[in-house]
Amino acid sequence: MLIVMQANATEEQVRAVCARIEALGFKAHPIPGSTRTAIGITGNTGSVDIGSLESMPGVVECIPVSKPYKLVSRDAKEEDSVITIPAPSGDVLIGGETVALCAGPCAIETPEQAMAIAEQVARAGVRLFRGGAYKPRTSPYSFQGLGEPGLKILAQVRERFGLGIVTEAVDNESLDLVEQYADVIQIGTRNMQNFSLLKRAGRASKPVLLKRGMSATLDEFLMAAEYILAEGNYKVILCERGVRTFSDFTRNTLDLAIIPAVKRRSHLPILVDPSHATGRRHKVLPLSRAAVAVGADGLLVEVHHEPDKALSDGMQSILPDELRQLAEEVRQIAEVLHRRVN
Amino acid sequence: MLIVMQANATEEQVRAVCARIEALGFKAHPIPGSTRTAIGITGNTGSVDIGSLESMPGVVECIPVSKPYKLVSRDAKEEDSVITIPAPSGDVLIGGETVALCAGPCAIETPEQAMAIAEQVARAGVRLFRGGAYKPRTSPYSFQGLGEPGLKILAQVRERFGLGIVTEAVDNESLDLVEQYADVIQIGTRNMQNFSLLKRAGRASKPVLLKRGMSATLDEFLMAAEYILAEGNYKVILCERGVRTFSDFTRNTLDLAIIPAVKRRSHLPILVDPSHATGRRHKVLPLSRAAVAVGADGLLVEVHHEPDKALSDGMQSILPDELRQLAEEVRQIAEVLHRRVN
Amino acid sequence: MLIVMQANATEEQVRAVCARIEALGFKAHPIPGSTRTAIGITGNTGSVDIGSLESMPGVVECIPVSKPYKLVSRDAKEEDSVITIPAPSGDVLIGGETVALCAGPCAIETPEQAMAIAEQVARAGVRLFRGGAYKPRTSPYSFQGLGEPGLKILAQVRERFGLGIVTEAVDNESLDLVEQYADVIQIGTRNMQNFSLLKRAGRASKPVLLKRGMSATLDEFLMAAEYILAEGNYKVILCERGVRTFSDFTRNTLDLAIIPAVKRRSHLPILVDPSHATGRRHKVLPLSRAAVAVGADGLLVEVHHEPDKALSDGMQSILPDELRQLAEEVRQIAEVLHRRVN
Amino acid sequence: MLIVMQANATEEQVRAVCARIEALGFKAHPIPGSTRTAIGITGNTGSVDIGSLESMPGVVECIPVSKPYKLVSRDAKEEDSVITIPAPSGDVLIGGETVALCAGPCAIETPEQAMAIAEQVARAGVRLFRGGAYKPRTSPYSFQGLGEPGLKILAQVRERFGLGIVTEAVDNESLDLVEQYADVIQIGTRNMQNFSLLKRAGRASKPVLLKRGMSATLDEFLMAAEYILAEGNYKVILCERGVRTFSDFTRNTLDLAIIPAVKRRSHLPILVDPSHATGRRHKVLPLSRAAVAVGADGLLVEVHHEPDKALSDGMQSILPDELRQLAEEVRQIAEVLHRRVN
Repeated sequence: MLIVMQANATEEQVRAVCARIEALGFKAHPIPGSTRTAIGITGNTGSVDIGSLESMPGVVECIPVSKPYKLVSRDAKEEDSVITIPAPSGDVLIGGETVALCAGPCAIETPEQAMAIAEQVARAGVRLFRGGAYKPRTSPYSFQGLGEPGLKILAQVRERFGLGIVTEAVDNESLDLVEQYADVIQIGTRNMQNFSLLKRAGRASKPVLLKRGMSATLDEFLMAAEYILAEGNYKVILCERGVRTFSDFTRNTLDLAIIPAVKRRSHLPILVDPSHATGRRHKVLPLSRAAVAVGADGLLVEVHHEPDKALSDGMQSILPDELRQLAEEVRQIAEVLHRRVN
Repeated sequence: MLIVMQANATEEQVRAVCARIEALGFKAHPIPGSTRTAIGITGNTGSVDIGSLESMPGVVECIPVSKPYKLVSRDAKEEDSVITIPAPSGDVLIGGETVALCAGPCAIETPEQAMAIAEQVARAGVRLFRGGAYKPRTSPYSFQGLGEPGLKILAQVRERFGLGIVTEAVDNESLDLVEQYADVIQIGTRNMQNFSLLKRAGRASKPVLLKRGMSATLDEFLMAAEYILAEGNYKVILCERGVRTFSDFTRNTLDLAIIPAVKRRSHLPILVDPSHATGRRHKVLPLSRAAVAVGADGLLVEVHHEPDKALSDGMQSILPDELRQLAEEVRQIAEVLHRRVN
Repeated sequence: MLIVMQANATEEQVRAVCARIEALGFKAHPIPGSTRTAIGITGNTGSVDIGSLESMPGVVECIPVSKPYKLVSRDAKEEDSVITIPAPSGDVLIGGETVALCAGPCAIETPEQAMAIAEQVARAGVRLFRGGAYKPRTSPYSFQGLGEPGLKILAQVRERFGLGIVTEAVDNESLDLVEQYADVIQIGTRNMQNFSLLKRAGRASKPVLLKRGMSATLDEFLMAAEYILAEGNYKVILCERGVRTFSDFTRNTLDLAIIPAVKRRSHLPILVDPSHATGRRHKVLPLSRAAVAVGADGLLVEVHHEPDKALSDGMQSILPDELRQLAEEVRQIAEVLHRRVN
Repeated sequence: MLIVMQANATEEQVRAVCARIEALGFKAHPIPGSTRTAIGITGNTGSVDIGSLESMPGVVECIPVSKPYKLVSRDAKEEDSVITIPAPSGDVLIGGETVALCAGPCAIETPEQAMAIAEQVARAGVRLFRGGAYKPRTSPYSFQGLGEPGLKILAQVRERFGLGIVTEAVDNESLDLVEQYADVIQIGTRNMQNFSLLKRAGRASKPVLLKRGMSATLDEFLMAAEYILAEGNYKVILCERGVRTFSDFTRNTLDLAIIPAVKRRSHLPILVDPSHATGRRHKVLPLSRAAVAVGADGLLVEVHHEPDKALSDGMQSILPDELRQLAEEVRQIAEVLHRRVN
């Protein structure tokens, strides 16, 4: 259920409505917009007494929401959400009129590797750095990431190059640490429906990058985001990274139509990861162009200065030179859509 | 098997090699390139006597081709194939440096409908017109197209607006007629592995537009094209139109990564049909931009002046105004890739 | 639309209703059942004058059918359809209380091969023989079947061993010949939506075995059958043979849940082809047991006396000994379901 | 890497080899078989000094294992693993010659509901009871299970009816509790690649039931099991529950061919869950028969005495009467395979 407040409703009126909702045993989610505030109500809303809420000062109407998702919906917030990433070199915005680039290695391997790649990333004008300290791997015998030492390397990258840091958490313990060291907490594909982890991310103070599950429908994807918002963290960035199909010339099938589909239903920004989607270096550049052309709010790209020596996923990492070309072509396509790369 | 001729081999030398191949009981396919000619050999090539061919004047080498497809392969022809469509208003090229647009209604319904839409298509600067006279429909009780009267309407569109005509054939009988009236013979998704129809198309004098099957792998798609080339018709245009997956917010999942994948393996041009892929009007424009950005050689788009009255697929047809916007945005994105729309 | 006749309606009354329907410009399909006759009406039934039909003698009611399929529906015919295959050694029934086995090689290669396998098939107590004279092959360079000489070999198998013959037609020309030589006309997976071929099969005098398309939904499958019935041939046997999914340890994913799903919606019998579904010899026996256990009306199994020498699909053919074991185990499982193998 | 010991190797020799492996910095996994013991080595085995191990007393040979999974492989253990569930009424065996049935509600709702259903389950001769206290739900607003109070109800069911208890853990915290109250710890579909949870399950003292992920390949499924075995818990039971495909008449597509596929590659037992696979009550019975016929080691079935009042998944729960019919039919089919239901 959604309570729509008047455009000129006071903060006090909003607070009063929230208090009444909580007093009724539900959870209130005030969602400020540019012209009005909406208040989402979660909990089993079947028995909410609409009358007593609709008659409160400042309330325009109560809307029963039949869609399974509420807080992520455009009904709850009409304009695009813009998430601010406070990189040391200045805020990076995700959503709205900007297209954000984020690049880096699949996994953090050594300080030297991380610094060498970060230098190239910064030189290409990219302002967000990605790299895994915790790696969910199909095999228990594969390299699983450096853990906290990897996070410390990322913190050094942050300081030295002024880059905002995006890195994955795989359970509650690693999320505690990622929240401490990084700017954006990534929830990976395999954990998209790890509801326990989603709830923990919903109580985090940092933005969350949520990747689509390998066979998640659009509704399931938005519902997973809803888990995070329902706990109070509204800074959620979605990410399409390909789905599993019969098609066998790429590792996954990049489902770019989800970008306009998400834009119609939700106010949340959505990035595209062309590296995991394709698993092939030479397809990253064309699909990056396509992702920006379809309207994505940014890209998450794997880059490595020596991909053949990478401990994981080298085959899909592009080279620093290719990253510069990518940034340039993507900038030109963003212009056609009246957007700018930040 | 492929015979590679010397750069300066004479036409007579090529003819002599072909004659020897045919004398041995196989079929020879000379494939002229910009710097050299290659000759494909089809038939059960297990027993070809390589020695006698390799020692002939003008021959560089004989290459056993292990890939399942031969004539469609870049091994057989290194540079992009450019297919010429002789529209009355001048040739339209598909492949190479140009991006070709083709638009029109799903089905030809009446002369008035066809003319009204064709006028809008021509006004948007589009030079190829699509529209079905034979419609493969899931239900035997749905409108199945006008048949030959529909082809006659298309011929009038051709004359009046100077547009090249693309229309579907569904069996040998309709292919005979389509070949007579249209400029490009379309083989639809459901017939991609109708090998009998592919062979007939391979004996046609007109270019063939081959749509990817709903669950065709890349190899199956190229092998279907190979059926056409193996019969002697090298003017084949591929078309990605979405594949069937679990993903349920679009009718099909557009698999744009196939564009760079085809480009690596084959010299044939490939278009994208964003209308059938998505089944939703508002997704056609963003996915058209993405298709050109990823490197497609053109678009096949459904347009209708009164989509709500269309006898089939109105929900996915865009309006004439949207077509003009599409043409303009696609032109700008083509420029980023140093290509021009024709 | 369906007209339900009274239990004691006379043939003359049925004929009169049919005549009125045809006079109104529609097509009438009388469907005799054990207790009553229903009459399906096809054509654009939006404008049927129900009143004039409902008031005719012998008519109980007119039911507007909202489902896309009509004649294949249980609404049209409540009890199971039983299709009779007139093998020289006596009728073989498909549907109802019997489980029918059909076995043979993928392709007819030589008279010797066909006879050797047929002998083993007959010895295992199987009464239907399958084998392809026309083979739809992914590659134009693969063995495409013997054509009419293959059909002549099948006719000899029929005479010598008393087996009913099931073989595939791939276009109108081959269907003319198959209809002449065989007992059951098979329409293959790749042609499930070759509507031109379905219509031709609907005018054939022999039963049609329709295989599910590689990515056909249940509705599309039943609608393809509807094309055949709508032309007047009600002797249709469905066949599940696996669908295309991401799952990569079998060639296709056998979707056995379609058996009870078809049984709820349609009166048509349905077989299972475990050989094409799995593409692996050692999975044919367990999946044959499962198919009969789930309620299938029979099996279509590939068997070869020398699978390693087969020109196609040897890897999925079982040996004669395995066929005998299969027949025995399937017989026991059929008994649990109170059915018998014929 | 695998060390194969002589048939008559002493326990002391096995211990000595294990000690040497651990001294080299790897982990040793002795796997006793009926005729010989094998010792799996995990860790980065690239640098294992084979020579020093092969020359030890009692060692037959060292086999480098190229398959991604080791401990779950038939190479490591030739005969079927049989997992013992110590129900109060006596051990229930899973694997080998027995077929195990496990039934119960989707979620534990109240003591009354649990007892009423458990009584019916026991009456049907079923000896394992399933029911969720922690429910992973797509929506944060859906009933998420009773938590520990639900586990306490399950413990009462255990005592009162002598049934073994199977219930799901969704994170480390709930796993600690499930381990305490239940006999089998279930890891659900959405957590199949929650590697952090798999590792925790690998350190548990109770058997683990691992459900296949919604789009997991066979290798990914076995590798997920390998995570559990690699931590030392060899009591793993696999469970097929349907995969996500385009096919839309069931909730998921039950992939029964995985049963013989697992049997060829692994010694682990595998059950089938026909309730979640189909999501439809009337398909549970036929697919249960098919699952046993294909060779599954048992079934996991949802049953509810009042499915229309169930808080979750009522539509797919069968009634107690249907459970008795299921048990009887499954018993007869098991006999055909020379197995017995326990």
